[in-house]
Amino acid sequence: MPVGTQASVKTVRNSDLLENNWQIILGNTYHLYLRPGADVIGNAGGLHRFMSWNRNILTDSGGFQLFSLSKLRKRSEEGYHFQSHIDGSSHLLTPELVIELQRTFGSDVMMVLDECLEQPSTRSRTEESLNLTLRWAERARNMHRGDRQALFGIVQGGAFPDLRRKAAEVLSGMDFDGYAIGGVSVGEPRNLMKRAVRSCIDHLPEDRPRYLMGVGKPEDLVDFVALGVDMFDCVVPTRNARGGAFFVPGGHINIRNARFRNDPLPVQPGCGCYTCRTYSRSYIRHLFKAREWLAPVLATLHNLHYFSVLMGRIRMAVEERHYTSWKKEWYRERRSFDPGIF
Amino acid sequence: MPVGTQASVKTVRNSDLLENNWQIILGNTYHLYLRPGADVIGNAGGLHRFMSWNRNILTDSGGFQLFSLSKLRKRSEEGYHFQSHIDGSSHLLTPELVIELQRTFGSDVMMVLDECLEQPSTRSRTEESLNLTLRWAERARNMHRGDRQALFGIVQGGAFPDLRRKAAEVLSGMDFDGYAIGGVSVGEPRNLMKRAVRSCIDHLPEDRPRYLMGVGKPEDLVDFVALGVDMFDCVVPTRNARGGAFFVPGGHINIRNARFRNDPLPVQPGCGCYTCRTYSRSYIRHLFKAREWLAPVLATLHNLHYFSVLMGRIRMAVEERHYTSWKKEWYRERRSFDPGIF
Repeated sequence: MPVGTQASVKTVRNSDLLENNWQIILGNTYHLYLRPGADVIGNAGGLHRFMSWNRNILTDSGGFQLFSLSKLRKRSEEGYHFQSHIDGSSHLLTPELVIELQRTFGSDVMMVLDECLEQPSTRSRTEESLNLTLRWAERARNMHRGDRQALFGIVQGGAFPDLRRKAAEVLSGMDFDGYAIGGVSVGEPRNLMKRAVRSCIDHLPEDRPRYLMGVGKPEDLVDFVALGVDMFDCVVPTRNARGGAFFVPGGHINIRNARFRNDPLPVQPGCGCYTCRTYSRSYIRHLFKAREWLAPVLATLHNLHYFSVLMGRIRMAVEERHYTSWKKEWYRERRSFDPGIF
Repeated sequence: MPVGTQASVKTVRNSDLLENNWQIILGNTYHLYLRPGADVIGNAGGLHRFMSWNRNILTDSGGFQLFSLSKLRKRSEEGYHFQSHIDGSSHLLTPELVIELQRTFGSDVMMVLDECLEQPSTRSRTEESLNLTLRWAERARNMHRGDRQALFGIVQGGAFPDLRRKAAEVLSGMDFDGYAIGGVSVGEPRNLMKRAVRSCIDHLPEDRPRYLMGVGKPEDLVDFVALGVDMFDCVVPTRNARGGAFFVPGGHINIRNARFRNDPLPVQPGCGCYTCRTYSRSYIRHLFKAREWLAPVLATLHNLHYFSVLMGRIRMAVEERHYTSWKKEWYRERRSFDPGIF
C-alpha cells in the first residue's frame, strides 16, 4: 500500500496510482484529525470524496505517529493526551475517538489505537504496555462491528515472542476483520524483526488478512510473504524516491551519482513506467542536481511502478503455488544484476 | 511560452505540456551552460533529446539572468565576466559563445546576448549600453545565419522611446529571423511598459515574429497582442501556481484562503484541466496548507491550461479579424466574475 499520510501519496496524482493498478492506499488518522480536521473531511462526504479516490483506503490509527512525532504526550488508561506537532494545541485521542474519526473518514479498513513502544524496552514495561493495547483493542472492538468498514487489531509485544504470541491469541478471540503486526521496523536488526513476525503470525486466523505495518523494502515483501503476510505499507518507495533512489532489479541506484552524468539509458531499461519510457538517467540526474520539482515526481512514478510489478509477481507466484521456488529465483536474479555497472 | 529555465517546466511532465497543446517552451542558456553544462547536453544530442521534448525550444541568451542572478559580474566590450551563482566559478560569456552554446543545444530559436539595464538609468548610461548591445547583436548575427535555427535580435533602450526606435531600426537592418523587446517588466509602471513597446514595435518588420520578453499576465497578453506582439514568455503561470494562485476568468484566487476550507467545487467550474476535473477547492487548499508536493503540481496544471486556452482564443480572434471587439468582450467578461465570491 502506497502511503498517503495526509490524504496524498506524495508527488503523484490519482491517475498515476490508477495506472499502476494500486487497489488501496494508506491515510493517517492522527495527521488527518489535526489537518485538515475531521469536520472538513466529514463535510466532503468522507475521505474518498475529499481526495477523489474511488478505490480502497486504510487509515492507520496514529499510535505510531503519537510515538514518533508528538514530543509532548502523556498516556493514561483513557488514551493519549498530546500536543499537536503542527501548532502545539492540546488533544486527547482515545480508542473510541479513533474509531469515530475513521467512521467519519469512511475508511475501508480502520485500525485500532495501540501503543507503539520505544525499543529496546524491558519485559515488564512491554507487558504493561501490551496489556493496555489489548484493553484499548477491546474498547475499539466494542465500539465497532459492521460490514461497510473493516476493523483490524494490532499485535504488539516488542521483542518478546511469548508476549507477541499472547497478543495474537487474545486479539484473535475478539474476531477482528484482519490483523496487523505493529511495533516492528523501529530500528531493530532484521533477524529480530523476523522473530517478532514468526512468533505471532501462526496464531492469527488464516482466513483474515495479515498486515505487517511499516515494512516494505523489496526483500521484506519477498521474505515476509513467505512467512504468511498479506499486506504491507511503507514509505520506502516514495520517500527514497525523493532522495534520488530508484529501485531496480539489482537493488537500488542513486541517480545523483556522477557516473550517470552522460548516461543516455532509461533508469531501468525495459521498465514500463512513464519515467523510464520518457527520460534518460542523464536528464533525471540533472533534475535532481538542479533541485527541479519534477525530479521527485519522476522517481516516485518509477518506484511505485517497480513495487506494483513486484507485488503482482508475488501474488501470481502465491496463486500458482510455487512461491518457494519463485523466491529463490528472485534472489538469484537480484544478485545477477550489479547496480553499480548495469 | 511556458518557462523551463533549467530544461524543465517546473513540476510538470512533457505529457502535461503535450496535452495542453503547447508548441514551444523556453530554456535558458546561462542556466544550462552552468548546469548541467553544454558538454552534457551536447553528448545527449542537443536539448530536445536531453529533455525528450520533440516540439520547439527557444533559448534565452542569459543577458537577463546575468543582470538578476550574478552578483559579481563585469561587462567589457568582449562580453560578461561573471561568477556562477551556483558555485562561484569564473566565466566569460561573449556574444559568440552564446551562439555556440545555443548551436550545441540545437534550440529552434536562439537569442543574441544583450545587456539588461537596471531601471531607472540615465539617458547617457542607457545609450552607451544600447550601443554595446547593438554591436553584440551584429557580432552574433555575423556568427550565425542559417535555416535550421532561427536567431532573434533584442531591442533595448530602457525608458527612452527614441533609443528604442533606433534599436528597432538598426536591428531590422541586420535581418534577424525574429525580434524581441527586452528590458521591460523590470519593475516599471504598466504605462511605461506600454510606451516602451509602442515606441519600437512598428519599426520592426511585420513579416517576422515579435516577442515581448518576460511579460505574460493575462491582461498583458490581451493588451500587447493588440499592439502587435506575437510571442510571450513569463513565469507567472508556473511561479504563481507554486504560491497557491490559480488564474480564473475573474482574475486569480489564492486557494489557501480560509473561505475555501469546505468548498466542494473545482477551482474553476467547467475548466477542462486535470486538476479541475478531479479535485475540489477544499482538497487543494488542504494540500497547500499541509505543504504536500502535489499542491504546486495541481496548480501549475491548471494555470498552464488557463493560459493555453486564453492564447488559443486570442489566436482565433486575430485570425477571424475581430480582435478589438473580442478584447472588449474579454474585459467585460472578466469584470463580470467576482473572484471573491464565484
